Amino acid sequence: MGFETHGAFASRHIGTTGVDDEQVMLAAVGYESVEALVQAAVPQSIHVDPIANSTIPPAASEREALAELRVIAGYNRVRRSMIGLGYHDTVTPAVIKRNVLENPSWYTAYTPYQPEISQGRLEALINFQTMVCDLTGLDTANASMLDEGTAVVEGMLLARRASKSASNVLVVDADALPQTKALLANRAEAVGIELVELALSDGAELPEAFGVFVQYPGASGRVWNPASVIAAAKERGALAVVAADLLALTLVTSPGELGADVAVGTSQRFGVPMGFGGPHAGYMAVRKGLERQLPGRLVGVSKDADGHPAYRLTLQVREQHIRREKATSNICTAQVLLAVMASMYAIYHGPHGLRRIAERVHETARGFAEALTGAGFELAGEHFFDTVRVRVPGRADEIVAAALERDILLLRVDADTVGLSFDEASLDRMPGTDLVAELRAVFGIERAAGSARGSAVPAELQREVDYLTHPVFNTHRSETSMMRYLKYLADKDYALDRGMIPLGSCTMKLNAATEMESITWPEFANIHPFAPVGDVQGYLVLTGHLESWLAEVTGYDTVSLQPNAGSQGELAGLLAIRGYHRANGDLERTVCLIPSSAHGTNAASAVLAGMRVVVVACDELGNVDLADLHAKIDEHREQLSALMVTYPSTHGVYEHEIRAITDAVHEAGGQVYVDGANLNALLGYARFGDFGGDVSHLNLHKTFCIPHGGGGPGVGPVAAKAHLAAFLPGHPMAQSAQHPAFDVGTGAQGEFVHGGGPVSAAPYGSPSILPISWAYVRMMGAEGLKQATGAAVLAANYVAARLRAHFPVLYSGDNGLVAHECILDLRPLTAETGVTVDDVAKRLIDYGFHAPTMSFPVPGTLMVEPTESEDLAEIDRFIDAMIAIRAEADAVGRGEWPADDNPLRGAPHSAESALVGEWAHPYSREVAVYPATFGLSGVERVRAVHGKYWPPVRRIDNAYGDRNLVCACPPPSAFE
Amino acid sequence: MGFETHGAFASRHIGTTGVDDEQVMLAAVGYESVEALVQAAVPQSIHVDPIANSTIPPAASEREALAELRVIAGYNRVRRSMIGLGYHDTVTPAVIKRNVLENPSWYTAYTPYQPEISQGRLEALINFQTMVCDLTGLDTANASMLDEGTAVVEGMLLARRASKSASNVLVVDADALPQTKALLANRAEAVGIELVELALSDGAELPEAFGVFVQYPGASGRVWNPASVIAAAKERGALAVVAADLLALTLVTSPGELGADVAVGTSQRFGVPMGFGGPHAGYMAVRKGLERQLPGRLVGVSKDADGHPAYRLTLQVREQHIRREKATSNICTAQVLLAVMASMYAIYHGPHGLRRIAERVHETARGFAEALTGAGFELAGEHFFDTVRVRVPGRADEIVAAALERDILLLRVDADTVGLSFDEASLDRMPGTDLVAELRAVFGIERAAGSARGSAVPAELQREVDYLTHPVFNTHRSETSMMRYLKYLADKDYALDRGMIPLGSCTMKLNAATEMESITWPEFANIHPFAPVGDVQGYLVLTGHLESWLAEVTGYDTVSLQPNAGSQGELAGLLAIRGYHRANGDLERTVCLIPSSAHGTNAASAVLAGMRVVVVACDELGNVDLADLHAKIDEHREQLSALMVTYPSTHGVYEHEIRAITDAVHEAGGQVYVDGANLNALLGYARFGDFGGDVSHLNLHKTFCIPHGGGGPGVGPVAAKAHLAAFLPGHPMAQSAQHPAFDVGTGAQGEFVHGGGPVSAAPYGSPSILPISWAYVRMMGAEGLKQATGAAVLAANYVAARLRAHFPVLYSGDNGLVAHECILDLRPLTAETGVTVDDVAKRLIDYGFHAPTMSFPVPGTLMVEPTESEDLAEIDRFIDAMIAIRAEADAVGRGEWPADDNPLRGAPHSAESALVGEWAHPYSREVAVYPATFGLSGVERVRAVHGKYWPPVRRIDNAYGDRNLVCACPPPSAFE
Repeated sequence: MGFETHGAFASRHIGTTGVDDEQVMLAAVGYESVEALVQAAVPQSIHVDPIANSTIPPAASEREALAELRVIAGYNRVRRSMIGLGYHDTVTPAVIKRNVLENPSWYTAYTPYQPEISQGRLEALINFQTMVCDLTGLDTANASMLDEGTAVVEGMLLARRASKSASNVLVVDADALPQTKALLANRAEAVGIELVELALSDGAELPEAFGVFVQYPGASGRVWNPASVIAAAKERGALAVVAADLLALTLVTSPGELGADVAVGTSQRFGVPMGFGGPHAGYMAVRKGLERQLPGRLVGVSKDADGHPAYRLTLQVREQHIRREKATSNICTAQVLLAVMASMYAIYHGPHGLRRIAERVHETARGFAEALTGAGFELAGEHFFDTVRVRVPGRADEIVAAALERDILLLRVDADTVGLSFDEASLDRMPGTDLVAELRAVFGIERAAGSARGSAVPAELQREVDYLTHPVFNTHRSETSMMRYLKYLADKDYALDRGMIPLGSCTMKLNAATEMESITWPEFANIHPFAPVGDVQGYLVLTGHLESWLAEVTGYDTVSLQPNAGSQGELAGLLAIRGYHRANGDLERTVCLIPSSAHGTNAASAVLAGMRVVVVACDELGNVDLADLHAKIDEHREQLSALMVTYPSTHGVYEHEIRAITDAVHEAGGQVYVDGANLNALLGYARFGDFGGDVSHLNLHKTFCIPHGGGGPGVGPVAAKAHLAAFLPGHPMAQSAQHPAFDVGTGAQGEFVHGGGPVSAAPYGSPSILPISWAYVRMMGAEGLKQATGAAVLAANYVAARLRAHFPVLYSGDNGLVAHECILDLRPLTAETGVTVDDVAKRLIDYGFHAPTMSFPVPGTLMVEPTESEDLAEIDRFIDAMIAIRAEADAVGRGEWPADDNPLRGAPHSAESALVGEWAHPYSREVAVYPATFGLSGVERVRAVHGKYWPPVRRIDNAYGDRNLVCACPPPSAFE
Repeated sequence: MGFETHGAFASRHIGTTGVDDEQVMLAAVGYESVEALVQAAVPQSIHVDPIANSTIPPAASEREALAELRVIAGYNRVRRSMIGLGYHDTVTPAVIKRNVLENPSWYTAYTPYQPEISQGRLEALINFQTMVCDLTGLDTANASMLDEGTAVVEGMLLARRASKSASNVLVVDADALPQTKALLANRAEAVGIELVELALSDGAELPEAFGVFVQYPGASGRVWNPASVIAAAKERGALAVVAADLLALTLVTSPGELGADVAVGTSQRFGVPMGFGGPHAGYMAVRKGLERQLPGRLVGVSKDADGHPAYRLTLQVREQHIRREKATSNICTAQVLLAVMASMYAIYHGPHGLRRIAERVHETARGFAEALTGAGFELAGEHFFDTVRVRVPGRADEIVAAALERDILLLRVDADTVGLSFDEASLDRMPGTDLVAELRAVFGIERAAGSARGSAVPAELQREVDYLTHPVFNTHRSETSMMRYLKYLADKDYALDRGMIPLGSCTMKLNAATEMESITWPEFANIHPFAPVGDVQGYLVLTGHLESWLAEVTGYDTVSLQPNAGSQGELAGLLAIRGYHRANGDLERTVCLIPSSAHGTNAASAVLAGMRVVVVACDELGNVDLADLHAKIDEHREQLSALMVTYPSTHGVYEHEIRAITDAVHEAGGQVYVDGANLNALLGYARFGDFGGDVSHLNLHKTFCIPHGGGGPGVGPVAAKAHLAAFLPGHPMAQSAQHPAFDVGTGAQGEFVHGGGPVSAAPYGSPSILPISWAYVRMMGAEGLKQATGAAVLAANYVAARLRAHFPVLYSGDNGLVAHECILDLRPLTAETGVTVDDVAKRLIDYGFHAPTMSFPVPGTLMVEPTESEDLAEIDRFIDAMIAIRAEADAVGRGEWPADDNPLRGAPHSAESALVGEWAHPYSREVAVYPATFGLSGVERVRAVHGKYWPPVRRIDNAYGDRNLVCACPPPSAFE
């Protein structure tokens, strides 16, 4: 590409658009053009050219795309939400917004699987865990859940496996959030759990059950004491799962003190905008003894090679990716970026500040409640924290409408009742308005509210136990101090803003600043997920575009954006298949075929969709073994529900026989689930729907540029053919699809009704980050998306071509080509020299890189995915590092360095370890920390020296951390 | 302060609001309360309590202030400006906006006077200089000027001093920008230069002159060849100063090739928003032989103690602060942040990208010009780059109005002529609009414009010489690469986001994220400075508030926000005094008394205001010597124009006799100029206007939180009593003051007309950053401003109290107290041990600090200003470092380390120097790089080790750099 495209976004997103770069790489791979390369790599049988009839508009410039987004944002209407129901307006401290949410050092980081280069976000997450433990009064909290609703589901599953009760019943609080009830119903049905809803606060008798679920305070705002219900449940061998509001917990007795086994909820109102429903960080905490039952990720303290305390993800052995069909949860991501924000909110306010916010919210609510009762209104309950329900017989619609006139959103509970939730944002005096005065006008109250002293929290539930006593919550009160703490943490970490993160199957590509720009606009950030349809037209336009664009590029008919992680997309897709079979009367179709090479999440999702996993073998090339596939189909023909297959395969190759595979499944009455994890190798060249896919999930945080955020948020839309549309996730509170006309609108939206149960708490999952993917597609256009695929495939093949002489490349497809990633086999090296995959991965840190994916899908290998966003200079820098490391390993093999004391085994080297005390290694300090500078001169050497990334700790002892589980902020003395 | 203020902005801005911190500090200083301390420090005679009658509204929360700013912003109207006249819409690449303009690592940095910890921004500035040199075809460019208008003034002054001509005449191109002409007129008059305006492009005969000033292309858009005019000027011994448009220079022959001696202009259209006039980076470049005449700052290459190339400010000997009354310029700041943005724009687009943008702008302009002539319109000239003038006899107002209807701003040249400037933003297709189609409608052109090939640039002026050939302009084409380059540079530097910058007289305090938030909103960023008054109502409300608030807190009657640096504020104030005397017929009042302790800029400004400087002695306490003052007044009674005095003094004390001083000056008919540099020690406790000041400038980038930006922008409003109002800076193109009502409006604006000549190119100086100061005052309220003063004074006295035993504290006032800063005398230490101020300053880098102000106002001292924003932990960390350094120096004094090889002399220590090769020093590597960790344990030690700031280079050789002047990007081979 020449000058014509300078300034075009595609040429900024793709790192190798320079003519010279591309020619150098093509020469190494042996092709004339990118088009020729990809045509040779992708089987002819599945080629398509969707661009000709694309409904994706021609690529917009960055400025044009933002201008269109401003128009779309303008269709949303920001009002003051008092709807509540688990979503509250909140004030994001500007220092956190700017230095976390708008800072690529935080948002472009990967999940902290390489803990030595992730100490900053691991510390932030252990702060989050400590905050949750303190407030809930429980012993161990994980590093966040996807949202409150899915956290309750995980609580249900945890209770079932941990309970000694033989019962299959979960008792559900009648005063639970409506979206939680809907989610529970959908998820319980799939795994055969029976739900019994009871008015627990009214003292209903408990049936035999494995668990009881309590909302605290209730969805109605009611604050009551569930201690006796919890005690009764435990007597029956059931576990008590309590969903609690974190802000309320600063004033009311914690679930832990009340005897709960598990607490769940959301940290949204700790500084994370409502964003029309997400993303936010849910949470889960458990009492002692249940910590090994926790789903999701857990950060713990261990020690490094020098004995210094160091953070890491702990108990990884529990993770779904190795449990496969024995998995108890399919949760593999967290909501790290949002958990970091919520934890920093707590750090910035501290225990006194949080309590003060809660007190002021409570005082405001109580003051207005008093005004209401003073004016003759009847309240639904006398005990509440921030939410009051008012009896307005026959007048609820009128009152809600009067509030709407004043740009206030009330909750219409029923024809005779409205609800009002106060929140932190209610405390500000915004220009030209006075919330309480306007509410008085809405209710026709003349008298000013009296000053409400005292409390509407029952005396027995007044919180007395301290929280957030650790120094980290009592240090950073000034913005200056907070800013520096955030920078201090970010500086410890390695993110995309430092260099390449060549993680196979993770697609760590550019998250462009323009894509990120609009997510903090008030029109996207400050919308309640259950706002009236008239207020969310902008969001509906945005999701409408995105759904139709995603459907088009994948060859499907309809898309649901609701799943808020890839795993949830898988689950939603499998539940759709399940629903389809059941609707056809095929109740026995429950077998899910999964190739042995599949990502572990596939199997876990199948289990949670009520399916039985049958593994299909792979051949030595990593492809599905067709003979075994046919055998398994024959064996389970009547029970065959689905085949899950990843394309291109998890081995990074385009399987030739994909059509034969999908045909065989269809012929037997099964459905084909194509895992979209590797879509970045396909866009513009082939479509899942065209080669036999019935349903797929996509990972917007991979192919469509939503940043990984250090381990979340993810977005995992599910796309399907028309016959599955009715079984895709719906939501009882979804706004209907009334779209205003928009000049790039497609009209595709709304053809299909998604009638399945919800898989996320919010109707549209994590909509506040969808503008990122919208902007990416809008700025690339169909042609740009195809160029990106070509560049990604070229980059992977270039890496394979240059490294093949140093490390065998496992698996390749047609013409010896890989797709968008390549697997380097380190087993021969390990056999020859004793140098392990771990050694190489950690040594790459000394060279200034994040390691590739380790030992997946094949143990003893590294899977490299350069993506299209890296330029040739960076790719070459990586290749040179790998070649240099190979030479170092060979030196170990030759005995030049001892097997137990060499730069690889010693890696990574912190600055401290190389500078403090004597140097007792057979290699020099310079070899330890500056290997990347050898052979360089001039500006390159300056850049390598000055740009050196210093890991703060040395190699971390995994086993020690698992044996000595510490998952909250260690006391200061731990660092002595 | 307790819990009540948690969440209040003042408690976030002020670092020591915790009850405990304050008590600890007060105990060390020996006072019961902050109020008691300040009352004791500030002389009783000047105490005021302005809060009672304040028109500053009570403090708003951060969210409230932003909401009010949104209302104000909404009063501005963004239209497509085609006005031109030196201001053009431009597209700021999002990667630069996010990672520079919105990144505290860039915007909170100080001027790079400590080059070892400023290599990142110094590299960015040398890139800027290289860009300017390449495009202008000249040999040396400086690190930016305040704006194009002042750059032309500096070009005039340079020409006068460098010319061998005895003439006092500057010939001015009749086709120069109108604001440049106005600025030249104002500034020339003050220093006795005669201007002769000639239509140079028509071949007018040149008179005898010391310089000729050419606008290229002309303000009318005309592109003509000034080579013969330049040659004729040089024949007469005059210098040729050419103001050139940088984007045009990518297509047209450079000023250097045409023989120019000096090129000036603005880099605004290289990605810096118009912002209603500023701030932007002006530029100046000169031919070989004139480099030592350059005003402002110049970055050069030198080498560090290890011989590695390193950047630094070069030829500092020229700077005004030591030239005083011999100064040739009073420019002391640059526009670093904006120069960085412009240079990064050039790096991101590269030479081909810039040329392509220019070509497309030119094609668009030419295409529409063709459509105009095709429709029978007559153009003012056939040769142009981006601007065409159209003859519309008698219809200009009608055409301009028709354009306004379509949200397009045209230039009304006169009743018969309109002007249209095309720019980069004209190239985008914004939603629902088509610029060219709308322009056709405005002019009533039916026919579509033909495709314009060829060029409207004369063949002889087609640029042939390459530019931006250095690798840095040809490497970072992808956003990923650009993002990493920006981080790489930022990581080399020490800014407020790492730690304290205790620079006396610079007031490096918090630049809060909320304050910064609104400056990038389109309603503030995308406004042309000459937009119609109806479009800029929001700006007029904002400036109205700020003017009245600043007047109130300083005790003056009126404020002009026009000066875009403190130095320009000084000049404006002195010009006002000059104008006042002259209006009174006192033509002979030209003597300006300046105490010997004054900042050098004072004297330089006086000279440029046409005054004669007479120095008044100071006594041994640093106060004005009253006897000498009286003597000097007596000696110059009839010629006395003004006294300039800084309060509190540059020695950091509240002079007791300030009223006696101001009275004496007034009694003799003089005016009192109070330099507001130290206002941070006074706000809320005393007011300049109340103790005798007639006029002052303020530094919004100090007291009012505008970030230093690594060395600019600054904002230096001038505040005065009513009798000087008529002489404050006006502007021929200022929008009149029609303010809509606004609920926190004060109505104070508009009482006074500022009738002086302009001192900045734009009517309101640098308005796009004024929301920062507005937000600061709005969120602090009058009470908060006073609290900040108290906290700043407490912090300085705490430092003095704790360090006094280790370093003598020079100067203190009443009760032994200092004001907001304290001077540590290192001369005894140097005498005892040989350790110099430089050694201590550089050693502080190893301890993780930016050095205090060195050797100002007293050689051999360090002046420490902690400001109110640091918390006790950070202040103690600094004090502990100073005490530890004192102990190290004592060890040198005792001979434990040799005088020429010790940790102080060796400082700062880069990581490379401590890690590569043998270690041949008598102190350990650990002592070299980790001195701040000694004595720490636990979390403090972890933070010190993990948070270690690594200077990229060692101590830089100043003399070498001055002897071997290299001020453009060194070739890659220079780093071999």
